[in-house]
Amino acid sequence: MKAVVYKGNGQIVLEERPMPEIIDDRDAIVKVTLTTICSSDIHIKHGAVPRAVPGTILGHEFVGKVIEVGGAVKKVKPGDRVAVNVETFCGECYFCKRGFVNNCTDEHGGWALGCSIDGGQAEYARIPFADNGLTVIPDHVTDEQALFNGDILSTGYWAAKIGEIKPADTVAVIGAGPAGLCTMLCARLYTPAKIIAIDTDEYRLNLAKEKGLADLTLVPGRDDLEKRIKEVTEGRGADTVFEAAGGKDTFQTAWKIARPNAVVVVVAMYEEPQMLPLPDMYGKNLVFKTGGVDGSYCQEIMDLTSCGKLDAGFLITHRCGLNHIMEAYDVFENKRDHVIKYAVTPQLND
Amino acid sequence: MKAVVYKGNGQIVLEERPMPEIIDDRDAIVKVTLTTICSSDIHIKHGAVPRAVPGTILGHEFVGKVIEVGGAVKKVKPGDRVAVNVETFCGECYFCKRGFVNNCTDEHGGWALGCSIDGGQAEYARIPFADNGLTVIPDHVTDEQALFNGDILSTGYWAAKIGEIKPADTVAVIGAGPAGLCTMLCARLYTPAKIIAIDTDEYRLNLAKEKGLADLTLVPGRDDLEKRIKEVTEGRGADTVFEAAGGKDTFQTAWKIARPNAVVVVVAMYEEPQMLPLPDMYGKNLVFKTGGVDGSYCQEIMDLTSCGKLDAGFLITHRCGLNHIMEAYDVFENKRDHVIKYAVTPQLND
Amino acid sequence: MKAVVYKGNGQIVLEERPMPEIIDDRDAIVKVTLTTICSSDIHIKHGAVPRAVPGTILGHEFVGKVIEVGGAVKKVKPGDRVAVNVETFCGECYFCKRGFVNNCTDEHGGWALGCSIDGGQAEYARIPFADNGLTVIPDHVTDEQALFNGDILSTGYWAAKIGEIKPADTVAVIGAGPAGLCTMLCARLYTPAKIIAIDTDEYRLNLAKEKGLADLTLVPGRDDLEKRIKEVTEGRGADTVFEAAGGKDTFQTAWKIARPNAVVVVVAMYEEPQMLPLPDMYGKNLVFKTGGVDGSYCQEIMDLTSCGKLDAGFLITHRCGLNHIMEAYDVFENKRDHVIKYAVTPQLND
Amino acid sequence: MKAVVYKGNGQIVLEERPMPEIIDDRDAIVKVTLTTICSSDIHIKHGAVPRAVPGTILGHEFVGKVIEVGGAVKKVKPGDRVAVNVETFCGECYFCKRGFVNNCTDEHGGWALGCSIDGGQAEYARIPFADNGLTVIPDHVTDEQALFNGDILSTGYWAAKIGEIKPADTVAVIGAGPAGLCTMLCARLYTPAKIIAIDTDEYRLNLAKEKGLADLTLVPGRDDLEKRIKEVTEGRGADTVFEAAGGKDTFQTAWKIARPNAVVVVVAMYEEPQMLPLPDMYGKNLVFKTGGVDGSYCQEIMDLTSCGKLDAGFLITHRCGLNHIMEAYDVFENKRDHVIKYAVTPQLND
Repeated sequence: MKAVVYKGNGQIVLEERPMPEIIDDRDAIVKVTLTTICSSDIHIKHGAVPRAVPGTILGHEFVGKVIEVGGAVKKVKPGDRVAVNVETFCGECYFCKRGFVNNCTDEHGGWALGCSIDGGQAEYARIPFADNGLTVIPDHVTDEQALFNGDILSTGYWAAKIGEIKPADTVAVIGAGPAGLCTMLCARLYTPAKIIAIDTDEYRLNLAKEKGLADLTLVPGRDDLEKRIKEVTEGRGADTVFEAAGGKDTFQTAWKIARPNAVVVVVAMYEEPQMLPLPDMYGKNLVFKTGGVDGSYCQEIMDLTSCGKLDAGFLITHRCGLNHIMEAYDVFENKRDHVIKYAVTPQLND
Repeated sequence: MKAVVYKGNGQIVLEERPMPEIIDDRDAIVKVTLTTICSSDIHIKHGAVPRAVPGTILGHEFVGKVIEVGGAVKKVKPGDRVAVNVETFCGECYFCKRGFVNNCTDEHGGWALGCSIDGGQAEYARIPFADNGLTVIPDHVTDEQALFNGDILSTGYWAAKIGEIKPADTVAVIGAGPAGLCTMLCARLYTPAKIIAIDTDEYRLNLAKEKGLADLTLVPGRDDLEKRIKEVTEGRGADTVFEAAGGKDTFQTAWKIARPNAVVVVVAMYEEPQMLPLPDMYGKNLVFKTGGVDGSYCQEIMDLTSCGKLDAGFLITHRCGLNHIMEAYDVFENKRDHVIKYAVTPQLND
Repeated sequence: MKAVVYKGNGQIVLEERPMPEIIDDRDAIVKVTLTTICSSDIHIKHGAVPRAVPGTILGHEFVGKVIEVGGAVKKVKPGDRVAVNVETFCGECYFCKRGFVNNCTDEHGGWALGCSIDGGQAEYARIPFADNGLTVIPDHVTDEQALFNGDILSTGYWAAKIGEIKPADTVAVIGAGPAGLCTMLCARLYTPAKIIAIDTDEYRLNLAKEKGLADLTLVPGRDDLEKRIKEVTEGRGADTVFEAAGGKDTFQTAWKIARPNAVVVVVAMYEEPQMLPLPDMYGKNLVFKTGGVDGSYCQEIMDLTSCGKLDAGFLITHRCGLNHIMEAYDVFENKRDHVIKYAVTPQLND
Repeated sequence: MKAVVYKGNGQIVLEERPMPEIIDDRDAIVKVTLTTICSSDIHIKHGAVPRAVPGTILGHEFVGKVIEVGGAVKKVKPGDRVAVNVETFCGECYFCKRGFVNNCTDEHGGWALGCSIDGGQAEYARIPFADNGLTVIPDHVTDEQALFNGDILSTGYWAAKIGEIKPADTVAVIGAGPAGLCTMLCARLYTPAKIIAIDTDEYRLNLAKEKGLADLTLVPGRDDLEKRIKEVTEGRGADTVFEAAGGKDTFQTAWKIARPNAVVVVVAMYEEPQMLPLPDMYGKNLVFKTGGVDGSYCQEIMDLTSCGKLDAGFLITHRCGLNHIMEAYDVFENKRDHVIKYAVTPQLND
C-alpha cells in the first residue's frame, strides 16, 4: 500500500509499504477513507519532535472503515465507520482512569500514532487499544465532518473544557488557525457572551467571524489589544484566554489580556521555553493550564456532531488524493492559498 | 396611584394607593413601565403562601425607570432603566456572600417584594437594597426582553446552573409552562445534545419545539416516558431532570426518568409534601436539588440578553394596561387562550 | 468448606459447601482470613432484600489471601493479602468509567457478592473482576485494620466525599452505628471545625467521643436537636448532615438541622419510603444525596490506613471463629453486649 | 506614638508619629498588642516593592484591641480583640464578591497596609473597611496564636485551598520558612497521605518534622529530589507542589517533581521572571497557580484555631518590645539564630 513515511533528517516520502496486521488482540485494522496533515507532522518533518521515529508512517488524524479486529476487541467490528483518536491508551492505568490519557503509562500510551508507530497517511492502519481509540461514526455524519474528531477538534474540546468558561464570560483566543478555530467552536458550547479572536491573518479572522465563532476580531499591531479588551470587559480583561498561536509575543499577550484570577490555557505546542514574568504579574493570581490534548471525549464530540451542535468540516479548504499528498504538504506548510486543512483521500487516484 | 392589593382571604383588588417613598438610604423608587403576573401571585390569592401579608401590593416581576434613590445607593441613578430582582437582599450576610440570596438573613431578605412588602403591580414601587436588586437595562434591550430577568428567567438560569449539565448530555424538563420554558432556554447555554420536554399541554410542547428549545417532546399517558427516554439515551435515562410542573405524578416521574447518579432539580413550588421512595431508588444514587431561585445572576442574564444569547420575550402572549389586570388574572389563572405570560403596562389606559 | 448460606424465608445456616473455582479468567480465589457480619446481611435474613438469591453464601466484607487467579488478572497474584470490595464491577462501562461502580451495567455489576453470587462468610471465595475488586494489604496493616476497607469504611468514605465538607464546617451525623462511626472517621479527613454525633444509644455516642470522632453528642428526646445545633452554628444549622440511622424520624431530623443550602447525605439503607415536605422546606434550598456506596476508593482508603491516617479497627468489639458465627448473628442482630462489629476467623475452631 | 517608618532608599527607622484617626466611617482604630516582621517588609526595605510609599508606617501582620470605630462599622466594636487582615478590601466589587480580594478595585484595595497606607509596626493603627479586615479573636485564643491569621497563615490557607489536595495525595512543599511551614500546616487540613518538605536548611526541616508537618524531608544537593519523590509515589511524582522558596532553581524543581496533571502553586513572591520550559514539559499537562494570598478566609482560619485544628503559634521563635524592633529586623533579615518569626510587643519597654 502507499504511505507517507518519515525518513529522518527533515525528509518525508510517499512510498510503498506492506499492509498492517493485527499484532495484539486489542488491535483493529482500519481502511483509511480520509486523512489529513497536522502541523505536528510539519514539526516532525523539521526534526523538532524527538519522540518521532524514522521509518514510521505519519498521520494521526483520520477516519476509515474497520476491516479486522483482534480477539479482545468488543466495541467495534468489521464494517464500522470510525474516527481515530490521536492517542492510543490502555484505559486502565492511573492516568487513563482519570481521563489523562495523554499520560497513559503504557509503552505505546499517549501520542504514538504517526510518530513512533505507523499512522494513517496510508491506505490502511493498525490501531492499538481499538476499543479506546476508535469512535463509531453515525450513518448521517460524513467522513469530512468526522475527520477532525480525534485530534484537532479534540484539542479545542479539551482546551474549552479546562478553560472554566461560564455563561456570559468573555473569552479571548490568540491564533485563528486550526487549533484556534476549533477552540472557538468548542468555547461556544459554554455560551460566553463574546469570543475575541486575535491573529495577524485577517483572512482567518474573517473566517472566524463568518462562521459565527468570533464576536470581535483584533489584529496585533493594528489594534491595542489590552486597551480594546479592557474596553469591552468593563476594564477587567478576558475571563479565559486561549493561547493557540505558539509564539513568544503571543505568550506575553496571553497573560496581559487576562483579567485578574483568569485561566490562561496554553493550547499551542511551543518550540521554545517562555519567560514567565512573575514579578510583573504578582497579585494578578492567574492560573496557567499547560499541556497537550487529552483525547478523552471523542464520543461526546461525536454525539455533538451527530446532533448538529458541533461541525468542524468547514476547516477543510483543500482536497486531494493520497498520490498528491506531497504537494499538499507543501501548500499546508507554507500556508499558501488560504489553506486551513486538507482532506486527503487514499482511494482517490487523482 | 393604581395598584393590585392582596386583601387576604383569596381576594385581590385594583385600588388607589399612595405613592411609595424612600424610607432607607439604600432604597430606590422605580416608575414601573411593564409588569406581569406570576403563578406565585395566584398561590397568594389562594391563601397558600403563609408569608404573604394582607394589604400588600402584589407583583415581583417588573421593569421600570429609576426616579429617585437613597443616599447610600451607588450603582443606579435616576433615569436608569432597570429590571427588578424578585429577591431583596443585603449582600453582606453569610448567605448573600455565597450567592444564596434567597436565604438572606435580613428582616426583608429573600422573597419579600409583592408578598410582605409592596411590589410592582402598580405605577411605582420602592425597591430596598437597590444596589443589589436592580439591573440596568442596556438601551438596545426592550422592556419586554428584560421583563422576566428578575424572576422567572432567573429561576430557569439558577436551575440550569445547579443542574450540572455538560455538553452532549440529555436533559429532561417536566412542565412546559413559564418555569419549564425558561429552564429549557437556560439549559441550552450548556449545550446538551438534546432537551426532552414533557407536558400534557401539546400547545406548549409545540411552542418549545418551534422556539428551538426542545428536541423531543413527550406527553404522559400518550407516551411511555421511561421507555422513550431510555431509547434515546442508550438505556441510561436523562443526565439531568428538571421538575417544573409541581405535581405528585411528575415528582415520581422525575426520579424514574433520571439515569443513575443523575441530578434532579426540583424547580417547581410544591403545595404538598411528596413521597421519596428510597427503597425503590436504592443504589440509583440520585442527587435532588430543592429550593427556590437564588436571584444572584441578574447581571449575567442581562449580559446574555444584551448580546442576543438569551431572550425570554417570546413568553409574552398577552398584553394589557394595568386597568385591565383583573381580567388578565382571570385568563392567566385559568390558562385560557394559550396564555403563557402577560405584559401589563401601568401607563396604558386601554 | 464451611459457609453461611441464605436459604430464603428468613433462614440462614452454616453448612458444608464445595470449594469455589475460577470460572472466568478475570476471577481470583481468595482464602478468607477474616470476615464479618453487616446489617445488610440481617436485611437479607429478613427477606427485605429482593435481589438476594436463596442458596447464596452470604458475606460481602472480608479480607484474605489470594490462592489462584484467572489468566486475565494482572494486579494481584497468589500469595497477596487482600481486602475485598463489596461491589464487583467491570471497570469499562459508562458508570464504572465515572466511578459510579454501584451502577456497573455488567450482569454481576454492583452489589452481588454475598447476595446473588457466593460471598465471604466462608473459608474461600471466588472474586469476579479481581483486578477491580481486590486491594492489596501492605505488610504492616493487619487484617483487622483492613477488614472494613471494602464495605462499611468505603461507605463512610464515599459519604464524606460527596458531603462537600470544607475546613471549619460543622458536620452532623445521625446514627453512631458502624456506618455513622465510619462516616465521622472519614469526615475528619476534611477537617470540619466540629462533628456532632446524634444517637439514642449513649454507649455509642461515648465511643464516638472517646475515639475523637465527635466533638459534641446529642440524644434525641433528651436534647432539643434543632436548638442545640443552631446554638453552636451561630443560628445557621449544620453545613452537612449525614443520615446514617435509617429511621422515619431521623429522616425528618436530617433536613431540619441542616442550614439553608446544606448537603444532606442519605447514608442509611431505608426499608420504607420517606416523606419529603417540600412546602415546609421551600426556600431552604437543600441538596439531598441518596444512594449506596460507590466502592471506587479502596486503594485511597488503604493508602490512608497504611500511613496511619485512617483506622476503623476499633469497630471490632467481638471476635469468634466461623463455627460460632450463628451466635454472632444473634448478638449482632439484637445489638447485645454493646456490639459494634464482629471479626470472624474461618480458620479458628473455637 | 512609636512606629517603624519606611523612608525610601533602603532605610527604615523607628520614630515618633502622631496617633492615627478615623478618616472614613468604615474605619476602625486598633491598639496594636502584638506585631511581627514579614519578609515582604525586607523586600520593601530593599526597595524591591514599587508600590511601597516612603513615609509609610510598615507592618501588615498584627493583632490588637479595637478602641474606636467609624459610624458605618457593624461587625466590630471598641473592646474587641482582633486579628488584622493584610488586605483592605471593599467587599462589593467584582473581585471581592468572588473572594479575589487581592484584586479589590478600590483605590486602597489589596495589599496597602504597611505599604502604601500606615500599618501596624506601631502602637496604634487605622484599619480601613474594618468590617472586612478585622477578625474577632475568641477569649481562649491568645494573641500569639492569632498573630499570623491575617497574612502568613492566610497565605498557607489560600495556597492549600487552591492546591486541590485530596485525601491520600502526596504533597511537596519547597521551602520550610514561614510560608512553607504555614502551607504544610494548612495542607494537613485536607489529609494528604504524605507531605514532603524540601529545604537546604536542615534546622527548618527538623522543625517541620517535629511539629508533625512533614512526613519526609529532602535536601537539594544531598538528595536526588526527582528520584526520591518518584520512589514514594509509585513513579508518578507529587500530586500537588507548593513552591514557597522563591528561587530560580526551586521554580524548575517544582514542575519536575510534579506528576503529570498536577497542580503547582507558586506561593513565593518572586523578585525575578522565571523560565517556563514548555517544550520540556509538553504533554505533562501541569496547572500553575500564581499570585498572592486572597485573605478571604480569616474567619474560617480563626474558627479552626479556636477549635484547636490550626495553630501557627509555634512559628514564634523570638520575642521583643517595639523599641528593640530594629535589632529584630537585623536578626530576621539575616536569618540568624534559627529565627522563624518575631513577636513584637509595642507596650513592652524592654
